[in-house]
Amino acid sequence: MEERTEIANLGEFGLIDHLTKNIEIQNASTILGVGDDAAVIDHFGKQTVVTTDLLLEGVHFDLMYTPLKHLGYKAVVVNLSDVYAMNATPTQITLSIGISNRFSVEALNEFYEGVYFACEKYGVDLIGGDTSSSLKGLVISVTAIGEVTPNAFVKRSTAQKGDLICVSGELGGAYLGLTLMEREKKIYQENPQIQPDLENESYIVGRLLKPEARKDIIEFFEKNNIVPTSMMDVSDGISSEILHLCKQSNLGAVVYEEKLPIADDSRKAAYKFGLDPTVCALNGGEDYELIFTLKQEDYDKITLNEEISVIGYMAELEEGIKLHTKGGNQFNITAQGWNAFQQ
Amino acid sequence: MEERTEIANLGEFGLIDHLTKNIEIQNASTILGVGDDAAVIDHFGKQTVVTTDLLLEGVHFDLMYTPLKHLGYKAVVVNLSDVYAMNATPTQITLSIGISNRFSVEALNEFYEGVYFACEKYGVDLIGGDTSSSLKGLVISVTAIGEVTPNAFVKRSTAQKGDLICVSGELGGAYLGLTLMEREKKIYQENPQIQPDLENESYIVGRLLKPEARKDIIEFFEKNNIVPTSMMDVSDGISSEILHLCKQSNLGAVVYEEKLPIADDSRKAAYKFGLDPTVCALNGGEDYELIFTLKQEDYDKITLNEEISVIGYMAELEEGIKLHTKGGNQFNITAQGWNAFQQ
Repeated sequence: MEERTEIANLGEFGLIDHLTKNIEIQNASTILGVGDDAAVIDHFGKQTVVTTDLLLEGVHFDLMYTPLKHLGYKAVVVNLSDVYAMNATPTQITLSIGISNRFSVEALNEFYEGVYFACEKYGVDLIGGDTSSSLKGLVISVTAIGEVTPNAFVKRSTAQKGDLICVSGELGGAYLGLTLMEREKKIYQENPQIQPDLENESYIVGRLLKPEARKDIIEFFEKNNIVPTSMMDVSDGISSEILHLCKQSNLGAVVYEEKLPIADDSRKAAYKFGLDPTVCALNGGEDYELIFTLKQEDYDKITLNEEISVIGYMAELEEGIKLHTKGGNQFNITAQGWNAFQQ
Repeated sequence: MEERTEIANLGEFGLIDHLTKNIEIQNASTILGVGDDAAVIDHFGKQTVVTTDLLLEGVHFDLMYTPLKHLGYKAVVVNLSDVYAMNATPTQITLSIGISNRFSVEALNEFYEGVYFACEKYGVDLIGGDTSSSLKGLVISVTAIGEVTPNAFVKRSTAQKGDLICVSGELGGAYLGLTLMEREKKIYQENPQIQPDLENESYIVGRLLKPEARKDIIEFFEKNNIVPTSMMDVSDGISSEILHLCKQSNLGAVVYEEKLPIADDSRKAAYKFGLDPTVCALNGGEDYELIFTLKQEDYDKITLNEEISVIGYMAELEEGIKLHTKGGNQFNITAQGWNAFQQ
């Protein structure tokens, strides 16, 4: 960055004006946006869906290898992913940030560029937020609001025995991207002369730094009259998500290793790092795909969509939660997902 | 605290279960609460109001003199205050927290006790959130959602020339409470043997640590068919808020020093600290009172309510924004409110 404008030069309200002056409202339901005590949304005849996520520097992202524009984009997308996971359509977000004086206005502009880019792409309005100084580290809190036809939302707790377990897209890529970036960071810290070796790794790096929410899958459901029996998004890793679906639906599950969708680029990266691609796919997290269950009679409808893989089925509680491996073994699936409080 | 349970013993999901197991839903519009990707709210025939605030340790609160239970209560109340400031009724909140491992489960319990106490008192439902570890410092993000009869919400930008400027309750107390606590903290740090001298200061300490949102004022408006022409809550100090109302309504204002509502306890504390009570009332902030403008013909209606003071009137833009002092002088009102980015 060439220029550096200190945030103190603008003041809090000047900063808010600066960051929000170009907002264009995209949803008719946005009655009042940024600039008052609260925003106002009209939801006649629809139900409102609300979700929120906190992203903290050093815990959820590392600014050493995360461009601010990508971070802004991702902060929005991970929240929209939760709205889609309810079979709902996101319509508005609020965004609060805490920033230390090591950030310049130009740096914040980059962050907001990513935010607005995501808002435009997914058709949501930024309607409010809070801007604060922080003593240390960047703090990001996003709340997303969406709408859904009354009682058409899909919970985690309503899977039925025999339902097919499906997942969108591919798994494990974001974790492998993270592994690569952490490895390159360590090499750089030991010897700043060495340039990062990211060639041919754009797929896994993209999965980490610029995830997308599966708007297309929700649109596909609507177009084809598909209503999943349960659904959630894949943020902690599908092992963890399958355990959630089973626990909340009071069922067991069978998942087939050979059915897990893993991109060739992820497989290659896993082998390069000496990791098992299956373990990365099961436990990696941050894929922001959708995992959902379907009645068996809906199977024909989803074969139309190459982005959806059937990976197993819901079983009796007593059958446990099992992975059937390619080698013919069975293992209990356990939560190895990202756990915020484990050291 | 006698017991100390490490958060890692519960794990993230165990912690969420633990913190949310006693939630009782208070609003019929809460269709689905904590435990899924997003919450679901029904708002047929109403408009939805959304507001959010970020509270960061070391910036917005000091845990050295802020009991966690009070902090939980205040984190909710400051958001509800923004909903009332729209002339709306809060119905739901989401709460995200980032916590370092210096907090025990018992400490978090205290924080949530305060959160639930506020939810119960104000009749709002906690419907979701995010729980994360933080490297350092407590991070709190609350989003409040409310409802309002279509187009009955009150903005900041709609005051008219000649409207009365009114304020609820009393001003400056929270700032004096903060001044006291910071003074006692400094004395304690210099000599931990000296016990804090908070006797006879319970009013100002209470204004700082346990503010209330003015639900009663909104109820009074409804009961008496009063619709303010503009309104906002007093979080940064009324100088700053008056400047907002004037700027957004494109008007000037006249405020009378002698009309500023200041409690006797605040006045005494100000003199004790060598401060001007008027300056504390104008610039103090964190009072969470409501400042609003009214048509002159509504004057008779508000004289019924002892909690409302008329402090001035909206003037032409060209007249500026003036304080008329008791001594007969006129000063320009400038924003001395809390500015997050000033050093």
